[in-house]
Amino acid sequence: MIKNVWKLPLRISNSTKNNGFPVTKYWIHSQPNFTKNNFNIKRGNFSHVEEEHLYFFRKLLGESRIITDLSDLEKYNVDWNKHLRGASTIVLKPKTTEEVSKILSYCNNNRLAVCPQGGNTGVVGGATPVFDEIIVSTELMNKVINLDEKSGVLTCEAGCILQNMDEFLQQKNLIFPLDLGAKGSCHIGGNVSTNAGGLRLLKYGNLHGNVLGLEVVQANGTVLDLLSTLKKDNTGYHLKHLFIGSEGTLGLVTKVAIQCRLRPKSTHVAFLGLQNFNQVLKTFYKAKQDMDEILTAFEVIDTPSMELANEKLGLGSPIGDYPFYVLIETTGSNEKHDEEKLDGFLQTCLNKNFILNGTVTGEVSKYKAIWDVREKLPQGYIKDGFVFMYDMSFPLENYYKLVEDLREHMGSLSHRVFGFGHLGDGNIHIQISVKEFNQDVANHIEPYIFELTKKYNGSISAEHGMGFLKAKYLNLMKSQESINLMKNIKQMLDPNGILNPYKVLF
Amino acid sequence: MIKNVWKLPLRISNSTKNNGFPVTKYWIHSQPNFTKNNFNIKRGNFSHVEEEHLYFFRKLLGESRIITDLSDLEKYNVDWNKHLRGASTIVLKPKTTEEVSKILSYCNNNRLAVCPQGGNTGVVGGATPVFDEIIVSTELMNKVINLDEKSGVLTCEAGCILQNMDEFLQQKNLIFPLDLGAKGSCHIGGNVSTNAGGLRLLKYGNLHGNVLGLEVVQANGTVLDLLSTLKKDNTGYHLKHLFIGSEGTLGLVTKVAIQCRLRPKSTHVAFLGLQNFNQVLKTFYKAKQDMDEILTAFEVIDTPSMELANEKLGLGSPIGDYPFYVLIETTGSNEKHDEEKLDGFLQTCLNKNFILNGTVTGEVSKYKAIWDVREKLPQGYIKDGFVFMYDMSFPLENYYKLVEDLREHMGSLSHRVFGFGHLGDGNIHIQISVKEFNQDVANHIEPYIFELTKKYNGSISAEHGMGFLKAKYLNLMKSQESINLMKNIKQMLDPNGILNPYKVLF
Repeated sequence: MIKNVWKLPLRISNSTKNNGFPVTKYWIHSQPNFTKNNFNIKRGNFSHVEEEHLYFFRKLLGESRIITDLSDLEKYNVDWNKHLRGASTIVLKPKTTEEVSKILSYCNNNRLAVCPQGGNTGVVGGATPVFDEIIVSTELMNKVINLDEKSGVLTCEAGCILQNMDEFLQQKNLIFPLDLGAKGSCHIGGNVSTNAGGLRLLKYGNLHGNVLGLEVVQANGTVLDLLSTLKKDNTGYHLKHLFIGSEGTLGLVTKVAIQCRLRPKSTHVAFLGLQNFNQVLKTFYKAKQDMDEILTAFEVIDTPSMELANEKLGLGSPIGDYPFYVLIETTGSNEKHDEEKLDGFLQTCLNKNFILNGTVTGEVSKYKAIWDVREKLPQGYIKDGFVFMYDMSFPLENYYKLVEDLREHMGSLSHRVFGFGHLGDGNIHIQISVKEFNQDVANHIEPYIFELTKKYNGSISAEHGMGFLKAKYLNLMKSQESINLMKNIKQMLDPNGILNPYKVLF
Repeated sequence: MIKNVWKLPLRISNSTKNNGFPVTKYWIHSQPNFTKNNFNIKRGNFSHVEEEHLYFFRKLLGESRIITDLSDLEKYNVDWNKHLRGASTIVLKPKTTEEVSKILSYCNNNRLAVCPQGGNTGVVGGATPVFDEIIVSTELMNKVINLDEKSGVLTCEAGCILQNMDEFLQQKNLIFPLDLGAKGSCHIGGNVSTNAGGLRLLKYGNLHGNVLGLEVVQANGTVLDLLSTLKKDNTGYHLKHLFIGSEGTLGLVTKVAIQCRLRPKSTHVAFLGLQNFNQVLKTFYKAKQDMDEILTAFEVIDTPSMELANEKLGLGSPIGDYPFYVLIETTGSNEKHDEEKLDGFLQTCLNKNFILNGTVTGEVSKYKAIWDVREKLPQGYIKDGFVFMYDMSFPLENYYKLVEDLREHMGSLSHRVFGFGHLGDGNIHIQISVKEFNQDVANHIEPYIFELTKKYNGSISAEHGMGFLKAKYLNLMKSQESINLMKNIKQMLDPNGILNPYKVLF
């Protein structure tokens, strides 16, 4: 039954208590001209969802694929971190590209803003509405279209969940070239739209290299068939890359063809304790030298991150306490060779005092337990008061500097400043936890943290994108000429600006 | 000394004999409205190079960096295959981005067409002028800007020659992620602009995955600084990809940052003889299973290709004659492990009768000699009458079908129909040699060959690009919606159409 809440843009109370969420950093309303905190942002000049619009959507999708019920809308309006709340009054769940096309065409003609949403696992507010954008969810577009088992090319709909795809591939002795903590919920289309990085990038490279083809619906409803399944195809401009990493602001990805790989026969995980960050770097360079071709992941965890895992998740280091921890995964085609390489490498690292202690395993249950410590860290945040989260990349020599600077900068203002991440790709997740959100603390952190990132020749978003939360810092990272070109591209592809407004560029 | 040939658009005689070239397929003149063969193409509405323009360029670059002498222009006007001849009257050799910017800005304001040119090693006419475009050569922009030895990130100017870069990297124990036959002449900027594929793609992936940053000059002279050197950077639209593979039609690449790799410690090459193409495929799948992480190249050569190597180059199979040959390269970090993997794989292939014979070596001089047979094949073409050349990619099960179909289709019209290439990436180079160019034969081949490629779900350009020669077949490969978007992008970035006209889109 369609509830009548759709009749007017939904207004949600700004009381946090009634909604059961922790104190939120940003609290965005559908109220026109509403500004709050440091987001000086106005609702764009879009239409509001009226009865006539709902009539169209109901006719197109049927009632069962439209959500307007207040409580059902909640999980689509609030982001994973529970830092952001949009005020969308309607979620649409198309099943086909044709339906997506009709929705976007209609929205474009009627100046209705749209927020494309996959698994809603993003952490920069890219997939959550800011005001009352219509949420177009890909969750019912979850079919595998084709798997060429010989070539490893998987073609699937955008709403397929990453973990489901990887499990499907496992049966065929293949592996998805991407893996990340949110794999149980995130959608392939969202992965592509955010150019997700994750845990296997060190070995398999990024999505610009692995995505072979896309199908994309443009803002005006035009369907772009870029669904090549060939590894090499140099015919005309390489359009698909426009939609990889543009966070749903240039088009809505409906299908993806991706180059998967043979599932390795052998997997080993080592967990190491180290004295300082300099030893971490030495260990990384040695790992590259000794076993480059089987090195799948090189992750670092600092002491406060491990303390968080202890306190909030009941997880801990399997080897006792050390200033730094490194998790190394190798995967290859020959168990014995991989073992020999890894053992030789570890022995050298011990002999040279790069590492103080370590454990290594090739048993699935054991290495999964080790991975758990690293992968579940984000689940610990939510229990650690309010956490300001950042996703940076740096040249390796600067990798950990910002964490140290921040600790000094924050002093007693923060509870915990911690860093961990994909060192092998120069990517660190930096968090600052405080008891509860406080605007003065926020102002103490930003823009300081971004300016320092720039000073250290880093990026303020390594793999998470700009979304809503970082968009206003784009000019710190990009030249005016680049931003002008981005704006021209946006104008060309979405002249009415209906696609994911307030994100990336604004 | 500046000769006065620049005063008028140069007219070159259409007699082939005076110029020492073989009979050419296409012979393009600066004569307005000139059409020839199956290219119904008119000179665009551009200005001609006049004295006032030359005055500007001379003031900017000095006389020594401008070529207007007829004989000196020759190598810039004629493509590598000697199939195409432009009629440019002037080559400009900027040394800096600022100079490129001033040149393009001036050309844009004066409606002077420009042909960006690197090593002029392309085989689809992408780097050769069609009429009298001003050639902007990157050959003096050949400096290494930075090499971060720890991370392997090389930043260099666009005119650096690939082989020079690889030799420079070798001293630092690093390797360029791209290798191709033209490495002694081709420029990194040209590689990027054509999204070159080559011999190592199987292991290291494509340039969209490996290029970290670019500096590009737009048609109006605006310099786009996209020169990130970070492996992960998700801040804003990923603009660099617009210029990878767009063949100089959207901007002129002036600097490149690229992720290089640790130079492998161990290299082995095996050369195998096989009974038929089905065995080639079985051998490939087995190689993936047994040694995926060290497999760097899997190349196939058919019998007529080997006959060409024999007859025209004095090179041959080191293992006697077989219907098909496969060259496998492995590279890794452990000599013993690689040998064990390769030996085990070869033994299995012999036992299963996938292969009939083979030789394998880890000695540099020996494996270079084996690679020579494969790499020098294109040098044999020029001596084999007139050769129609194609660069296709296919799903592997269709990889060799087109060659067989073509042999039947050509019958006695051709001297030799042969195929070889990067099977590991689905990429085959197909050639048809005839005694001399003949339009009827050309019409017998095209568009038949492209239509059949489409039927076999292939691409009509795997790694060479569309350039001038294939541009008119773009609509066979891309939907009208895609072509419309390409045209809109071209219009946005180069509204006067001065950048590499008649290429990719026309």
